[in-house]
Amino acid sequence: MKISTVLAAFVVVTLSSLCSQENPLPSWNDGPSKAALVAFVEKVTTPNTETFVQPADRIAVFDNDGTLWAENPLPFQLIFAIEEIQRLAPENPEWKDNATIQAVLDGEVASLKAGGMKALNEVLAVSHAGLTPEEFAKRVADWMTTAKHPRFERPYNECVYLPMLEVLDYLRNHDFKVYIVSGGGADFMRVFAEQVYGIPPQQVIGSYGNAEYQLIDDQPVMIKTPGVAFVDDKEGKPVAIHRFIGKRPIACFGNSDGDKAMLEWTTIGRTPSFGMIIHHTDAEREYAYDKAPKSSGKLIKALEDAAKRNWTVVDMKTDWATVFPKPGEKCECEE
Amino acid sequence: MKISTVLAAFVVVTLSSLCSQENPLPSWNDGPSKAALVAFVEKVTTPNTETFVQPADRIAVFDNDGTLWAENPLPFQLIFAIEEIQRLAPENPEWKDNATIQAVLDGEVASLKAGGMKALNEVLAVSHAGLTPEEFAKRVADWMTTAKHPRFERPYNECVYLPMLEVLDYLRNHDFKVYIVSGGGADFMRVFAEQVYGIPPQQVIGSYGNAEYQLIDDQPVMIKTPGVAFVDDKEGKPVAIHRFIGKRPIACFGNSDGDKAMLEWTTIGRTPSFGMIIHHTDAEREYAYDKAPKSSGKLIKALEDAAKRNWTVVDMKTDWATVFPKPGEKCECEE
Ligand SMILES: [Ca+2]
Ligand SMILES: [Ca+2]
Repeated sequence: MKISTVLAAFVVVTLSSLCSQENPLPSWNDGPSKAALVAFVEKVTTPNTETFVQPADRIAVFDNDGTLWAENPLPFQLIFAIEEIQRLAPENPEWKDNATIQAVLDGEVASLKAGGMKALNEVLAVSHAGLTPEEFAKRVADWMTTAKHPRFERPYNECVYLPMLEVLDYLRNHDFKVYIVSGGGADFMRVFAEQVYGIPPQQVIGSYGNAEYQLIDDQPVMIKTPGVAFVDDKEGKPVAIHRFIGKRPIACFGNSDGDKAMLEWTTIGRTPSFGMIIHHTDAEREYAYDKAPKSSGKLIKALEDAAKRNWTVVDMKTDWATVFPKPGEKCECEE
Repeated sequence: MKISTVLAAFVVVTLSSLCSQENPLPSWNDGPSKAALVAFVEKVTTPNTETFVQPADRIAVFDNDGTLWAENPLPFQLIFAIEEIQRLAPENPEWKDNATIQAVLDGEVASLKAGGMKALNEVLAVSHAGLTPEEFAKRVADWMTTAKHPRFERPYNECVYLPMLEVLDYLRNHDFKVYIVSGGGADFMRVFAEQVYGIPPQQVIGSYGNAEYQLIDDQPVMIKTPGVAFVDDKEGKPVAIHRFIGKRPIACFGNSDGDKAMLEWTTIGRTPSFGMIIHHTDAEREYAYDKAPKSSGKLIKALEDAAKRNWTVVDMKTDWATVFPKPGEKCECEE
């Protein structure tokens, strides 16, 4: 590495750190949620204290739907699956024998929603069996560039929460390694997570289908095969964390009862640690739901437990100065 | 970050790089294997060339048994399993009904060996069901400090190949991210991989058993349950790479037909890329085997394919100046 390169890299790091140190969370209003997060980060990063945590153990896990981006009117991956099935049905007459797919084509989305992440992942597995991961990724990427959110009238990958993009950066600037641990499909999220969140594929943990490796015509091929191998939701989330990361996080961000287990796994009996629940309280700028969500995101038990567990509950309406980035806007401090 | 800290970090990086740049692979004799590895690394790290690869895509995968450490007289994890079963049998009378465990107690190791990684993982799953990962890790760590290799008379975690420790460092010093992708158990390897290889848990991919998360007496608990969830061997290795890393590596190191699929997945149709096979040709200093191994490590097809795939075959006897570190010795350039 030449000195000039080293110096250039050094300058960039410094500017980025300054930017972040002056006002690391500009889209957060001052209040108990922001204060709790900042206090935790200062606690684990101040050297020569009892609460100092080595960078290698600064692991933070984030749910995706409803935590990093919106999940209404339906989880975006479900919208993708429905629109793909509609698009592809004419060329797949054999789908008429599949009850789940027919429900989608008949507009019976309610039954799919009732089936939760498992039904969603089944639909995806059926509609995308036989594809290579590369072909699947191309379909997701194509859809992202054309589809628009019905209410916010922007691509789905711009329906992300600016305050949470800032949290991701804030933690990374303090040497945290951030992971997504989501019920959504890993192959789906990995298409946009690096560009939108700055989270590389190996830090995106999600549900996954079966896959097979074969050498076909002397070319190595990975093929998505029918069937759901793992559902990364509820009690599955700590299992996935153990399987993929191999150590317990010290910070966890979620928004529903599906995150209760990983909030527990991160925080109970562990000091210092931090748990945060995004409570959707803002029908005007986004949505308001907990007990009876419009789609996914039911939040009852985790909210009940928050006080005794010392989890920070974000009141979206008062805690967030801004919800979404301006269309096309990038988080200023993004890496 | 204070300037002084930054400068200190900078000096350390520079010294480490110099050490590595002057003679990055001191335990390798000059010859075609070392030359091929060095040429590849220079090719992908020279800026402004067509073969330059961004650091984010510099992913290297390593098999463990027979590639990073020895696998004779038996794979070390199998020795651990056998010794643990012998140690624990008196307190587990119910094991008398388990045929696999009885075979172990009766010294019928041949049948276990014939069963390969699957049988090994079954034994481990049975003998360690109901443990938390922490308890399991403690047992492995305890065993590592007391057990000794029968021929080399040193702890098993010192039966690692010094030339390969140097390769790990050499790649890391060139901004590669290195992963283990092994048929061995992830929970087993993660106990020593960070200390011995400098590879953190989240970069250790292996076979894994089932596990369950529960809240017991208001405490979060992970429990290893019976059953093998995934065998990370042969065609399973590319599947695991896809599942855990989400992108294809550009360098792959293995020693047996169990690595053929991931060597293919890494190299075929991909330029630049690098595949290396450790051929055990040194009965005097280590072992000599391929077609008819003493335990695991059968190498026939991958060796046949090496020429047409342009995989580098290491002749251990002539390519390696040293095989094992001196007892207690650390690789000088280790991070
Ligand atoms: Ca959620
Ligand atoms: Ca091997």
